Amino acid sequence: MTNCFTLLLSNGLLVLTLLMTGTSVCAQNAYDITQEEALEAMMAAKKHAEDTDVLVNIAVVDAGANLKAFVRMDGSYLGSIDVAIKKAKTSRYFDIDSGELGTLTQPGGIIYNIEHSNGGLMTFPGGVPIKDKEGNIIGAIGVSGGTIEQDREIATAGAAALID
Amino acid sequence: MTNCFTLLLSNGLLVLTLLMTGTSVCAQNAYDITQEEALEAMMAAKKHAEDTDVLVNIAVVDAGANLKAFVRMDGSYLGSIDVAIKKAKTSRYFDIDSGELGTLTQPGGIIYNIEHSNGGLMTFPGGVPIKDKEGNIIGAIGVSGGTIEQDREIATAGAAALID
Amino acid sequence: MTNCFTLLLSNGLLVLTLLMTGTSVCAQNAYDITQEEALEAMMAAKKHAEDTDVLVNIAVVDAGANLKAFVRMDGSYLGSIDVAIKKAKTSRYFDIDSGELGTLTQPGGIIYNIEHSNGGLMTFPGGVPIKDKEGNIIGAIGVSGGTIEQDREIATAGAAALID
Amino acid sequence: MTNCFTLLLSNGLLVLTLLMTGTSVCAQNAYDITQEEALEAMMAAKKHAEDTDVLVNIAVVDAGANLKAFVRMDGSYLGSIDVAIKKAKTSRYFDIDSGELGTLTQPGGIIYNIEHSNGGLMTFPGGVPIKDKEGNIIGAIGVSGGTIEQDREIATAGAAALID
Repeated sequence: MTNCFTLLLSNGLLVLTLLMTGTSVCAQNAYDITQEEALEAMMAAKKHAEDTDVLVNIAVVDAGANLKAFVRMDGSYLGSIDVAIKKAKTSRYFDIDSGELGTLTQPGGIIYNIEHSNGGLMTFPGGVPIKDKEGNIIGAIGVSGGTIEQDREIATAGAAALID
Repeated sequence: MTNCFTLLLSNGLLVLTLLMTGTSVCAQNAYDITQEEALEAMMAAKKHAEDTDVLVNIAVVDAGANLKAFVRMDGSYLGSIDVAIKKAKTSRYFDIDSGELGTLTQPGGIIYNIEHSNGGLMTFPGGVPIKDKEGNIIGAIGVSGGTIEQDREIATAGAAALID
Repeated sequence: MTNCFTLLLSNGLLVLTLLMTGTSVCAQNAYDITQEEALEAMMAAKKHAEDTDVLVNIAVVDAGANLKAFVRMDGSYLGSIDVAIKKAKTSRYFDIDSGELGTLTQPGGIIYNIEHSNGGLMTFPGGVPIKDKEGNIIGAIGVSGGTIEQDREIATAGAAALID
Repeated sequence: MTNCFTLLLSNGLLVLTLLMTGTSVCAQNAYDITQEEALEAMMAAKKHAEDTDVLVNIAVVDAGANLKAFVRMDGSYLGSIDVAIKKAKTSRYFDIDSGELGTLTQPGGIIYNIEHSNGGLMTFPGGVPIKDKEGNIIGAIGVSGGTIEQDREIATAGAAALID
């Protein structure tokens, strides 16, 4: 990990000591999903979708809510590309299940119409945070194309792949 | 290609005959509206609007939800240009009557505020998928300018022109 | 039509003469392209494109630079949808051949990078004003998909159809 | 086309009959990249980037210029997410190497400032069309993060993976 290594050098002696202990210094401190983890979560979600015969788009964003991995299944809805990406971003923007956020955005809700922010939020189920084994949020996954229950289930399966 | 194969099965005997001749079967399976079909649907919708004295904008998108044909009737609302195009795109994005989608996006609905995706969806009546004679979705048509009942009726007339 | 009437008054004697002939004066004085004219220009451009074997997108805007008619030929570039529409709008925004405008927008030019305005201008050939028989600009036509020479020629053929 | 063939086999006897006719039913007519092909091209590009120690974002779009697959390598530029996607879209919008397009968009070039269309084009190297074995364009791949020479090389390696 280039960034990590650069940091180590700039931190000098202490860092070298840490390295010698064999502790995985960079990974768990960054609280950021790696490309391999993003692909693993995405492919696990894809497998779950295929096993349950649902055609979806799957997006994974990193800790910065930036797109990290994406796949669009053949025959899935065209409109779901953007919905999947926005579900993932929404989930990481507020570290919440996108569907839970939606309970607060209804008319009369405490954050009514927050969907207008951030270039458009998606506040129905299908976006879930991705955590590492210590429970730190390292990104989020968004799924769109099936029913909202299917989308949430597939997204959850993707996120779970990094913990199991 | 699943779509292709499904069609083959549903066409039964005829298809087998075609295969034996070595004809390129799938050509007709491209599932995309042609320019002539798009203009035909648009003009049929326009005629229906004129016959019923309604001033509308009419947009046809292809299978990729890209604008394929458009006409703006004299005196129709300026704001309906974008609404007509977005109705057509919305219908193709999710392969659904835009009004039906709208029943799911109301407050408390399962996909509340999905309108914030894809650069803006229109989820009231007036956008309908365009199908070929075999039932494959090849595009969509969006109409705006009249009442929602008129818009839907005109759009439906346009889509029907390719089947009758 | 109020606008039309106001205009008639301001034009004095000539107008009165016209009125006495019983001609439908106002239609052509509104200085706005009709739907029939827009479709006629578009179809003339389309025929020219077909006759010369060029695959293009063709857009016609009205006097208000609003989309009035559009068609996308099968197999034409996906990217040309937006380029054709923007060429037509650019031409009407400044009542000029889009290619002529481009001679002024180069580095060092008097309106360098004006392309950043109006949601994006296209300042190379292919957008031309549409005039009525009296020389009034009533809209514009934009063509994209061929070489810039072909695009301009096709657009010009479309605009010419309303005068010939 | 791998998917097609796999499907055919899984469908048993009728399909075998079809295959024996030797007709290429599915493959060459679809002209659209499958999810498996998109992932294969993306992973081949990623491997090439890793082998040459370049940190990039890699985007694959389908025949409709819609995002089909994406991965962001750890430590690659944040700004390259959008650049990679736009390079892929640009390449498919005009069926061209993005860098070749850029030779025409320079000051004085025949399509100067076309970058202002389609929500922003990227006209320097790193976006290349993806073809099937028959030469049909089925999508495009965009790479950003390295030098333009590296980006192009990595994109080309990704596209080549579907032919070799």
